[in-house]
Amino acid sequence: MPVNLTPPLAAQLLPVAGVFLGITEANIKRENRKDLLVMQLCEGARVAGVFTQNRFCAAPVIVAREHLSKAVGIRALVVNTGNANAGTGEQGLQDARTTCAALAGLLDCRAAQILPFSTGVIMEPLPVGKIAAGLPGCVTNMRVDNWFDAAHAIMTTDIVAKAVSKQVMIGGVNITVTGIAKGSGMIHPNMATMLGYIATDAGIAQPLLQQIVSEAANRSFNCITVDGDTSTNDALMLIATGQTALPEVRDSAGGDFAILQAAVTEVAIYLAQAIVRDGEGATKFITVKIEGGKSEAECKQIGYAIARSPLVKTAFFASDPNLGRILAAIGYAGVDDLDVAALKLYLDDVLVAENGGRAASYREENGQRVMQQSDITIRVVLNRGAAKAQLWTCDFSYDYVKINASYRS
Amino acid sequence: MPVNLTPPLAAQLLPVAGVFLGITEANIKRENRKDLLVMQLCEGARVAGVFTQNRFCAAPVIVAREHLSKAVGIRALVVNTGNANAGTGEQGLQDARTTCAALAGLLDCRAAQILPFSTGVIMEPLPVGKIAAGLPGCVTNMRVDNWFDAAHAIMTTDIVAKAVSKQVMIGGVNITVTGIAKGSGMIHPNMATMLGYIATDAGIAQPLLQQIVSEAANRSFNCITVDGDTSTNDALMLIATGQTALPEVRDSAGGDFAILQAAVTEVAIYLAQAIVRDGEGATKFITVKIEGGKSEAECKQIGYAIARSPLVKTAFFASDPNLGRILAAIGYAGVDDLDVAALKLYLDDVLVAENGGRAASYREENGQRVMQQSDITIRVVLNRGAAKAQLWTCDFSYDYVKINASYRS
Repeated sequence: MPVNLTPPLAAQLLPVAGVFLGITEANIKRENRKDLLVMQLCEGARVAGVFTQNRFCAAPVIVAREHLSKAVGIRALVVNTGNANAGTGEQGLQDARTTCAALAGLLDCRAAQILPFSTGVIMEPLPVGKIAAGLPGCVTNMRVDNWFDAAHAIMTTDIVAKAVSKQVMIGGVNITVTGIAKGSGMIHPNMATMLGYIATDAGIAQPLLQQIVSEAANRSFNCITVDGDTSTNDALMLIATGQTALPEVRDSAGGDFAILQAAVTEVAIYLAQAIVRDGEGATKFITVKIEGGKSEAECKQIGYAIARSPLVKTAFFASDPNLGRILAAIGYAGVDDLDVAALKLYLDDVLVAENGGRAASYREENGQRVMQQSDITIRVVLNRGAAKAQLWTCDFSYDYVKINASYRS
Repeated sequence: MPVNLTPPLAAQLLPVAGVFLGITEANIKRENRKDLLVMQLCEGARVAGVFTQNRFCAAPVIVAREHLSKAVGIRALVVNTGNANAGTGEQGLQDARTTCAALAGLLDCRAAQILPFSTGVIMEPLPVGKIAAGLPGCVTNMRVDNWFDAAHAIMTTDIVAKAVSKQVMIGGVNITVTGIAKGSGMIHPNMATMLGYIATDAGIAQPLLQQIVSEAANRSFNCITVDGDTSTNDALMLIATGQTALPEVRDSAGGDFAILQAAVTEVAIYLAQAIVRDGEGATKFITVKIEGGKSEAECKQIGYAIARSPLVKTAFFASDPNLGRILAAIGYAGVDDLDVAALKLYLDDVLVAENGGRAASYREENGQRVMQQSDITIRVVLNRGAAKAQLWTCDFSYDYVKINASYRS
């Protein structure tokens, strides 16, 4: 079960003026399941995003990148679950384009104004006929207060829907930021390793919008891992509709920009952590903090070695303070000049290791106490610089194997 | 249960003249278990080896490296299981030195002529008193025909002992190579990710001995992964006693060298594959072949992305031909200019993917047939060069989690 993750309530999710959501059951993988989402945007809305760096990126990722780069004014996003349209070659590209064309016909815009997204099983042909047949059902029922259903419509192996809203006041104007995301397996940077959609009613100039989404991704979805597998389909999209009285934000040095950047990042971090809390088979949520490094890169490198180690993750599943496995992971992270005698390892407030070995003050019962918790922080102080990094991961349980051994059935 | 791995028979393991093995029950972690091994070498024997690259390498690794570099004529190796003496700081180094000194006293040599090795749990103090108390039991019962018991004495979570012998004829002289190894979890390069000891009665000059062991490791223990965790204690040692009529091998261009290199490599590959076949929780043995790459390095990079992917490994456990996960792993391996449309993916003889997607000829029942086997080959033809690499891995099962969630108890 998800770790300390409360399902969102429909009433907590605030509409974003200019974003209309339509959902339907298109029977893509199985019946009686919301599996197709259309997000229609008002004229003038801007969209920026970041995508997976997987070379085997999915057909919709290729088409979405292409349409975004044309800067023709995106009018809708379409997301299907149940099939990733990845590893599908030329036919997959054609299917993604067919999807865009079908929706463009319904919305009376150009296919290049549509961004397609898919998630689900890889290397199966996209049932594009079912999608085309489902689109009218989405379009005839577009609502601004549909974020709750939208969050459910994009789920795959997720147990809990991920959605959150936040409001900030800028110059006397109330600004809303609402986001949804899906993902719980095949979760690892770079980059977003899931699908995420965040919208705000603020107006933001295009280059600034890209800057906000890139920085938010780096501090959220690029800081999580469940199984170390980088997906073929990941994307995080940021929409700014400009439907409030606040003038468009055009200056990245201004206070308005900083407030918006912080609000979007906060929503992104909530969603990213929610993905880890709902990680496949997760029973524990683990924050990995690396401090005192020479660079943020080496801090992340050590953090990921810990966060993706099956041996560390199974020990946390067992609540077994077999903490030498963390030292081993630090040691093989690939930081060649690391002085292992200089670092300190903490589990929450408990000093576990220093001077290259177990701390004299360490008592097994103290480690055991922390290991029993469902939220745990591993902190490594490298004592070689001022850089730091923070990642989030979960433990590795029987259920991870069970879920992934039976995903297609 | 181990995958197609027959336990060795005592009668199959050939003595190596000049290597005497003594084993005892030292009660290091638990009672009634052979857990301490001494390998005494004749005067003039040479030893070379390769060690873990983990920065948190264990105290015995540091001491063994130091003693090897002194070139004083190694007279014995001592191996304990049940405790890795890793992450043990200054005290750990002292304990490793105490072990060497205790054995040197019994064998009437210098402590620097002893190489210490430990395997087992990390970050627990080495029970050096128990080891010192056990050493006389080893030394009073040294035998050349003790390889079978020696292979058992170094096991930790191994189910099956790993040992093999091979004989080759060089210039009318019968040369023996016998090797033992342990390891089934925390298995990943670099380097050896286990303990391995190979001995031959041939005489080999020191630089050539190092060359043979390094090359053998690169083609065997550096080509396997179970869980992606590089151990703190790994070592592969090669002993040459020079106890036959064959003159010492001093020329790496000669035919004698090539025959010995091949024999040692064959023994090392057998042992490395045995470790994977006995990988924690393994139910399938998977050979990953990458061909047509620009360099061996990129072939290994792609091979390891596949071989360590939890999603790929759980799919193999389930015998589910969810083969898109292999494409995803190829895509995130980090080969930036990879043309995914140019590669072909095979499962044994079945062409699975080409042109960036599923092959037109592919039938699910053919993938299913291969997935049911216990020995499976994944072959990726990159079509961008002439380099290749071959790795071995196993699947990821409930039992991997079970074994590693309960290892200390």
